[in-house]
Amino acid sequence: MSASSITGAPASTGGVATAKGFRAAGISAGIKATGKPDIALVVSDQPATAAAAFTLNKVQAAPILVCKEHLQKSGGLVRAIVVNSGCANACTGDVGIADARAMAAATATLVGCPADQVLVGSTGVIGVNLPMEKLKAGIPEAFAALSASQGPQAAQAIMTTDPFPKESCTTITIAGKTVTIGGMAKGSGMIGPDMALAAPAPHATMLAFVTTDAAVPVPLLQRALLEVVDDTFNAITVDGDTSTNDTVVLMANGASGAAVTDAEYAPFVKALRAVCLELALGIVRGGEGATKLVTVNVTGAASTAEARATAKAIATSLLVKTAIHGGDPNWGRLLAVAGRARVAFDPRRAKVTIGSIVLFEDGRPYDDRAPQAAEYLKATDITVGVNLGAGSASSTMWTCDLSAEYVKINADYRT
Amino acid sequence: MSASSITGAPASTGGVATAKGFRAAGISAGIKATGKPDIALVVSDQPATAAAAFTLNKVQAAPILVCKEHLQKSGGLVRAIVVNSGCANACTGDVGIADARAMAAATATLVGCPADQVLVGSTGVIGVNLPMEKLKAGIPEAFAALSASQGPQAAQAIMTTDPFPKESCTTITIAGKTVTIGGMAKGSGMIGPDMALAAPAPHATMLAFVTTDAAVPVPLLQRALLEVVDDTFNAITVDGDTSTNDTVVLMANGASGAAVTDAEYAPFVKALRAVCLELALGIVRGGEGATKLVTVNVTGAASTAEARATAKAIATSLLVKTAIHGGDPNWGRLLAVAGRARVAFDPRRAKVTIGSIVLFEDGRPYDDRAPQAAEYLKATDITVGVNLGAGSASSTMWTCDLSAEYVKINADYRT
Repeated sequence: MSASSITGAPASTGGVATAKGFRAAGISAGIKATGKPDIALVVSDQPATAAAAFTLNKVQAAPILVCKEHLQKSGGLVRAIVVNSGCANACTGDVGIADARAMAAATATLVGCPADQVLVGSTGVIGVNLPMEKLKAGIPEAFAALSASQGPQAAQAIMTTDPFPKESCTTITIAGKTVTIGGMAKGSGMIGPDMALAAPAPHATMLAFVTTDAAVPVPLLQRALLEVVDDTFNAITVDGDTSTNDTVVLMANGASGAAVTDAEYAPFVKALRAVCLELALGIVRGGEGATKLVTVNVTGAASTAEARATAKAIATSLLVKTAIHGGDPNWGRLLAVAGRARVAFDPRRAKVTIGSIVLFEDGRPYDDRAPQAAEYLKATDITVGVNLGAGSASSTMWTCDLSAEYVKINADYRT
Repeated sequence: MSASSITGAPASTGGVATAKGFRAAGISAGIKATGKPDIALVVSDQPATAAAAFTLNKVQAAPILVCKEHLQKSGGLVRAIVVNSGCANACTGDVGIADARAMAAATATLVGCPADQVLVGSTGVIGVNLPMEKLKAGIPEAFAALSASQGPQAAQAIMTTDPFPKESCTTITIAGKTVTIGGMAKGSGMIGPDMALAAPAPHATMLAFVTTDAAVPVPLLQRALLEVVDDTFNAITVDGDTSTNDTVVLMANGASGAAVTDAEYAPFVKALRAVCLELALGIVRGGEGATKLVTVNVTGAASTAEARATAKAIATSLLVKTAIHGGDPNWGRLLAVAGRARVAFDPRRAKVTIGSIVLFEDGRPYDDRAPQAAEYLKATDITVGVNLGAGSASSTMWTCDLSAEYVKINADYRT
């Protein structure tokens, strides 16, 4: 895990069970028709403090409602997280809530803790109920497989059709002790094309689970996660559609013997951000149909909110994403999209760059540099920039290109 | 022109030069490398009152800046509109402004009116200057070709790679006299794939020009256009990207001898809306890569603004557009997108329909009806609905599906 991993392939040296006192497992319970792993379990040997961030979608899946309930009841203490892929348990009514609670209860019985110390996650098809008999058989199997070495299996089990698992890990030293922060994530994917006609639809969801063996009080852990989420998971987009199931959970069990207090907060947050960023960028790289990772830098904005709004407009623009896919140095689209982001700026003061090549500045185009920009766009990792010339605020978002493959995945998966 | 045209193929019986006292022309000036028509001219025999709506994009093309200047100077009187395709004259600096003024001046000399009574439109590649020698030769040629029968030629000349021209026309009776309202429009398209590598990028733009032989005072004409624009041109989307050149101009020259006053305002607006809606839906049908016209009805919202925000989120969602392209009755995506539109509603009170088939209601899915919905989605004209169950406000938007062809048009056009 290093800064270079932002522009290189994900190169994890650990994951969700690398921090002391955590074990994980990933097994196949037959929820996925493909037989691929579909239940992940993460357990802390001792109660961990937890912080979590959930989708702002008004339509919240049952596992999210149950997580919120449990976190409130337990005062933020968590022993385990149980996750299934293959079924999102979203838009499933009262039955869905009962099923999510039953998943937690089954796990709690095995772990030997109150049910409200278990969090639940689901990802997969929407609008159908969980196959509870498979989950009730699978959860004990996952529990039996728990091991500190099984993080990769857990990372596999939360995938839907992610092209690769996402793991990240780093260490810092606090008060002379080594503290580990590691995690796993999954991004958007569809359910396999083996579904029968008129079967329920696939449902893309972002899930991330991060563990640390530092001891961190709940309020500080919440502060750290909220601070980091905006620059990492909230700063990525594949298709701009927010899931009903998006979840990030951060657990701290103190097994390292090192405590994070105000003095160590800054280095802890820095390390946490690095792990979350690698996981987040892994999600973008593994985005549906993606062939390029695109960093969108907006600078010179009047406010951070305006910088973010502009970056988001660019990162979700079909015209920008298709141009980059085609290697087209279409700088005019970057400026035009900034112009529709409803932020204050004067185009004559704006500057547009592709890589380090300036294509528009001082109110005039430098279109003769387009061939140079086209050459740059052949790379896999692309940076585009718009300086609004309206202030000093900035924001970065990450997106991927939009390919015909994306359309095929989302439209033609049944054929 | 009838209500059925909303769901049928555009079937115009006239266009921008059908109203009395208007003439039009469309000629080839060689601005497009393909040799296709690229200059359109619309002239009113007598000064017409005009109302216009322009893009809210902060980056405004030179012709838009010049139109605003001219409308202000002339007090809203217009004799002619000159439009070129093949070059957007956007992001072209001071040279671009001078060129747009020169287009107007050349036209004004021929028409015999002040330059500020000429409006200008451009669409095509962005970031390059207009080939003024071609325009200066082409404008007199267009002037010589002016005729009341040449509306179709004008509609052809404003196209970029629109698959078909968009015209619409209707008549109403005011004070015993026949009043005609007709117009033409163009939608998004790319410049032909014959562009050299690293040539400037294509630029999609919506242009619409509507003429009537009613006499309408400027303030009433402005009121009518603004009222209609939100339900028609502002209610459509192809890819959600707002152009720097979007323009709608409405001219009223009074040649019918009938005057629209407050008493005739309502029927006049109704007829104007019908013409604008047919033009707007034509743009959606001709959207890049489009194979289906999708009507998005959002009802039961707490406010019209919230209904519109929800409809816009659905109409621009890649997941919704790809699902419809694939004929996938993915109702969960409709609900999930509504959920991320930042509007107030309780999912348990929401209702999701595809055609007339209810797929989610009273907090529970009716996924067994998915095969029926899949059958319905085989049609070319699709309606989807979300009732938020939060009030009585509603909004309708129109969009098209998202196909792999869209990506090809926008990414691979150089190959």
